Amino acid sequence: MSTSLDSLDTPAAVIDLARMQRNIDRMQQRMNALGVRFRPHVKTSKCTPVVRAQLDAGAQGITVSTLKEAEYFFAEGITDIVYAVGMAAHRLPQALALRRRGCDLKVLTDSVASAQAIAAFGRANGEVFDVLIEVDTDGHRSGIRPDDATLLDVGHALHDGGMRLAGVLTHAGSSYELDTPEALAALAEQERAGCVGAAERLRAAGLPCPVVSIGSTPTALSAAHLDGVTEVRAGVYVLFDLVMHNVGVCTTDDIALSVLTTVIGHQVDKGWAIVDAGWMAMSRDRGTQKQHRDYGYGQVCTQDGTVLPGYVLSQANQEHGIVSCESAPALDIVERFPLGTRLRILPNHACATGAQFPEYRALSGDNQLTTWERFHGW
Amino acid sequence: MSTSLDSLDTPAAVIDLARMQRNIDRMQQRMNALGVRFRPHVKTSKCTPVVRAQLDAGAQGITVSTLKEAEYFFAEGITDIVYAVGMAAHRLPQALALRRRGCDLKVLTDSVASAQAIAAFGRANGEVFDVLIEVDTDGHRSGIRPDDATLLDVGHALHDGGMRLAGVLTHAGSSYELDTPEALAALAEQERAGCVGAAERLRAAGLPCPVVSIGSTPTALSAAHLDGVTEVRAGVYVLFDLVMHNVGVCTTDDIALSVLTTVIGHQVDKGWAIVDAGWMAMSRDRGTQKQHRDYGYGQVCTQDGTVLPGYVLSQANQEHGIVSCESAPALDIVERFPLGTRLRILPNHACATGAQFPEYRALSGDNQLTTWERFHGW
Repeated sequence: MSTSLDSLDTPAAVIDLARMQRNIDRMQQRMNALGVRFRPHVKTSKCTPVVRAQLDAGAQGITVSTLKEAEYFFAEGITDIVYAVGMAAHRLPQALALRRRGCDLKVLTDSVASAQAIAAFGRANGEVFDVLIEVDTDGHRSGIRPDDATLLDVGHALHDGGMRLAGVLTHAGSSYELDTPEALAALAEQERAGCVGAAERLRAAGLPCPVVSIGSTPTALSAAHLDGVTEVRAGVYVLFDLVMHNVGVCTTDDIALSVLTTVIGHQVDKGWAIVDAGWMAMSRDRGTQKQHRDYGYGQVCTQDGTVLPGYVLSQANQEHGIVSCESAPALDIVERFPLGTRLRILPNHACATGAQFPEYRALSGDNQLTTWERFHGW
Repeated sequence: MSTSLDSLDTPAAVIDLARMQRNIDRMQQRMNALGVRFRPHVKTSKCTPVVRAQLDAGAQGITVSTLKEAEYFFAEGITDIVYAVGMAAHRLPQALALRRRGCDLKVLTDSVASAQAIAAFGRANGEVFDVLIEVDTDGHRSGIRPDDATLLDVGHALHDGGMRLAGVLTHAGSSYELDTPEALAALAEQERAGCVGAAERLRAAGLPCPVVSIGSTPTALSAAHLDGVTEVRAGVYVLFDLVMHNVGVCTTDDIALSVLTTVIGHQVDKGWAIVDAGWMAMSRDRGTQKQHRDYGYGQVCTQDGTVLPGYVLSQANQEHGIVSCESAPALDIVERFPLGTRLRILPNHACATGAQFPEYRALSGDNQLTTWERFHGW
């Protein structure tokens, strides 16, 4: 399908393919240099062509955040899948069905009770689940601390319970709160050392631990070395966004996702242009609010992608956005952005903004557009 | 389809039908008593059975925020539709096609340039569009101030340009920022008086202005009288949410939407229960953050809907939420919310949370569940 941005209705979620491919290559080359497998997290895109591009570049397997993602990408022919959210007992039949259909699905636990539930269900159904133990290396969410006695208890509950203890997995999600190379490198090392240490404790206790899986986009791009790590996971790097820009791991020129919008009105006295990208398009994500640079609901660019410094989507209602100049009311707003002007807005958070759309519009270097479906729900 | 909440996978968006019907009846009875037509805004639910219940209770026509909503509900047999977002010129062919198929679609403008574009397109295509002029009665977004000379210019551009000047429309969206009955009643009167005044100015200039359309949920529920108004629009009242609770126009017992979630882990030392409703389920809406009572990402209830005072969804990642007690770490978190416990979370903003789901699960008083599709995108 060949057309141009002018032909699209707005709002539309546009992926700049050259930027996306550059982001994919950068991460894959870095992982190759560090000597680890790379397993992208597909929750960012939920879109087959994006994931295919990641695999084509050398990624091995995928990470998912829901079993719907697992079902969807397994139907697309991808079998090596880590479900990186703690396994709820009521979802075990669905996980079992996926495995019986040939999906090499690995599941996650961080408690003895959950490990016992997985093992009991596995034994009752004659299935040996591959199970990773979630390790907490930065205190931000789930997982067992590397030095917590529970780690070995969970390991034994799985291994002695007849399951395959596949390894350990951690996610240093607090990296999103940092913004200096030194702090990022330090957290990356903390993530690595904590997860490797957990693996070593399990092995010292006579338990198997083949996989040591770590990752977040900021730490993956900041680690000095990954000794002892076998695989890295990251998601948002494929598109990047303003939060990642503020963290310091990309420039605005790396951000591959933008929302195409149309100017539908003005408030001249206030210096506002009203556009048809509200929070339904951008999402309610205000991730840059607590960072050193607050972009409101997004950075305004021309339709060709040129950043307009100082112009942000300062407010958003459901289907209305307000474009304004941060420094002073733009008294030339009507002349600058006449009715019908098309703008592109760089989002705070690519995962959240993408989820607002049923499809991406993939824009190639020669200005051709292709529609890429993405899926929604659970 | 008959089943119970126990059978649902999580997260799921549950509508309490008894509450929804009570909310619908309350608004309709109030509008009947005030002597105005009621035209619900369907952007909240994007769901046919919800809109049918509103129409069955006495609503006349609907309000939409996108032409996709107009297309969808017209296909469902609803013809009287106000598109309450400023008409972009590139969408005029779609509006024309809807009208030619029999949809009584009314469109909106707030500038001479836009009015001229609508009139020129209408004349070129032999179509007399019904056009409302958007009036700004509270400075929060779009529209022409009632006393602005532009009002008459736009009226003439439409009327003299051969279009049908259908009336004036305003939305006092700043009502969401208030939280006392006195302030709400004052803004409701400001909204009414401003919009009626704009209509009178148009009529005094010899222009037609049959419709005077106002509304937001808080002002609709706070107006002392609606003299001169012909119709009221409101959206979120049908489900309500924590933002509306903080504004003071509903109780938590009126909130008809909740997200069903499962406890998938704990961090005992922190008093956290980890649930499978993250921001992908709740949305990133933090509308209560700047209100007098901040509920984080939502108020925690038991599966049967009983509010658990002090327990909120304090943090959210994409598919993880953190339930905690606001006053002090809940050291009994594992005993209180064991693995597999099902909770229901009342959302900050029903429009945003609903949009995260492909369907609602409608729960009747006798504990029967029905799946109601809702639509997504533009």
